[in-house]
Amino acid sequence: MGQITRFGISMDSQLLKRFDSFIYHHGYANRSEAIRDLVRDRLVKGEWTDEKVETVGTITIIYDHHQRELAEKLAEQQHRAQESVISVMHVHLDHHNCLEVLAVRGKAKHIKTLSDNLISAKGVKHGKLVMTSTGKGL
Amino acid sequence: MGQITRFGISMDSQLLKRFDSFIYHHGYANRSEAIRDLVRDRLVKGEWTDEKVETVGTITIIYDHHQRELAEKLAEQQHRAQESVISVMHVHLDHHNCLEVLAVRGKAKHIKTLSDNLISAKGVKHGKLVMTSTGKGL
Amino acid sequence: MGQITRFGISMDSQLLKRFDSFIYHHGYANRSEAIRDLVRDRLVKGEWTDEKVETVGTITIIYDHHQRELAEKLAEQQHRAQESVISVMHVHLDHHNCLEVLAVRGKAKHIKTLSDNLISAKGVKHGKLVMTSTGKGL
Amino acid sequence: MGQITRFGISMDSQLLKRFDSFIYHHGYANRSEAIRDLVRDRLVKGEWTDEKVETVGTITIIYDHHQRELAEKLAEQQHRAQESVISVMHVHLDHHNCLEVLAVRGKAKHIKTLSDNLISAKGVKHGKLVMTSTGKGL
Repeated sequence: MGQITRFGISMDSQLLKRFDSFIYHHGYANRSEAIRDLVRDRLVKGEWTDEKVETVGTITIIYDHHQRELAEKLAEQQHRAQESVISVMHVHLDHHNCLEVLAVRGKAKHIKTLSDNLISAKGVKHGKLVMTSTGKGL
Repeated sequence: MGQITRFGISMDSQLLKRFDSFIYHHGYANRSEAIRDLVRDRLVKGEWTDEKVETVGTITIIYDHHQRELAEKLAEQQHRAQESVISVMHVHLDHHNCLEVLAVRGKAKHIKTLSDNLISAKGVKHGKLVMTSTGKGL
Repeated sequence: MGQITRFGISMDSQLLKRFDSFIYHHGYANRSEAIRDLVRDRLVKGEWTDEKVETVGTITIIYDHHQRELAEKLAEQQHRAQESVISVMHVHLDHHNCLEVLAVRGKAKHIKTLSDNLISAKGVKHGKLVMTSTGKGL
Repeated sequence: MGQITRFGISMDSQLLKRFDSFIYHHGYANRSEAIRDLVRDRLVKGEWTDEKVETVGTITIIYDHHQRELAEKLAEQQHRAQESVISVMHVHLDHHNCLEVLAVRGKAKHIKTLSDNLISAKGVKHGKLVMTSTGKGL
């Protein structure tokens, strides 16, 4: 962590009362922490609209591993994008269904393409890309 | 507006620098205003998860008015929910396509049902519900 | 409407059963209509990532009209972007709060800038941009 | 996989042409696969509004492991919810920043609470909950 700056903000008392209730119910330690979270979340959204910035994400897919040749196909796509894939976690949900989560790093554009390719594969039932951040400057 | 409360928050200087750049690019007058917007947006999201609270929204639909009996069907559905519909704006986009925006007020549950009914009608090409707020306490 | 094409799709029976239940609960007339809606919604999302395509949207804002000089400021911003603003609907929610909905048309980039400027104005409590479509080719 | 049902749907030719282009660009093998994906995605969204249904998700957090006592706090919260946490993947992004992804299973309500608690912890810079599915009946 770097230097900390302190500054004042003004808020209508009624709005602040509602915000304090939100803070309490979501488990934030104090107003600063809750506000920093809102700020960071908003900035991370912006990072992903610039497709050239290097960033970090996770790709979650649910698939049926009995689907013919699917596992190989998914593995092949991941290998082709191996410079972006940091690590993979695999969970056996039941006899049929697998959950796979990839931690990925790279340009937003490349991560989106990899995500598209995995989610569109036949036998992949559901998939979502989480766009997060390298954490630098946040 | 009621009373204003002033309080201090602390933030990593690097994060604050990025936030100040965001504030500048989005046209906010100062940090307080930008932070209030983030706070209000987060609170409004919460309002809509409690389906019993009275709230305000807008329903936007795009449809082809040449579609047989569609205009009557949409009008009938709006009349059946007339206690929720405050006002309607209608725009002729081209020879075929109409844009209609309903300002609605009521319980989240009722607004969602009306929105579902309008958007699912045959000939309605696209539709979106905006969940906003009565503005009270914000 | 132009020509209609008919084609077959295959689906796991269990998935189809769940989809039929969804169709029933959301008021769709039949599977075709429900599927067309999902397809159109997905295509509209894509339109808005290409910032140069002409498109249609609505901007919803909630504000306190007692806020000093706000009404003039909002009007001025709308006039500066008048080639994009088709029409405006204004609703008095209570003694303080107004709902204003703008129907807008233009390049995604310009619409987003106008939306940013209105939502970030001091006294605007909440705002949302709906990204819809001209309806052409949908 | 169970039985497969085949059924016909009708679509305006112009809309179908745009959908076929979408299918091609996103790497889907055919229309059936693309439509099944849209259907499943819509159904999964519905699952999560019923907070009592058992479901599956992933929680992604980015945090600074130099933050005092944060690692212990996060571990403690995960242990308190251990019946929901299936597995955890941890990645060292740089000297400061860690990426942690939890695969979780349980009632939507419990998963949301765990996610809130982790994301709101001081030192967690960004976090997102992916709401996916057990894959059953999809």
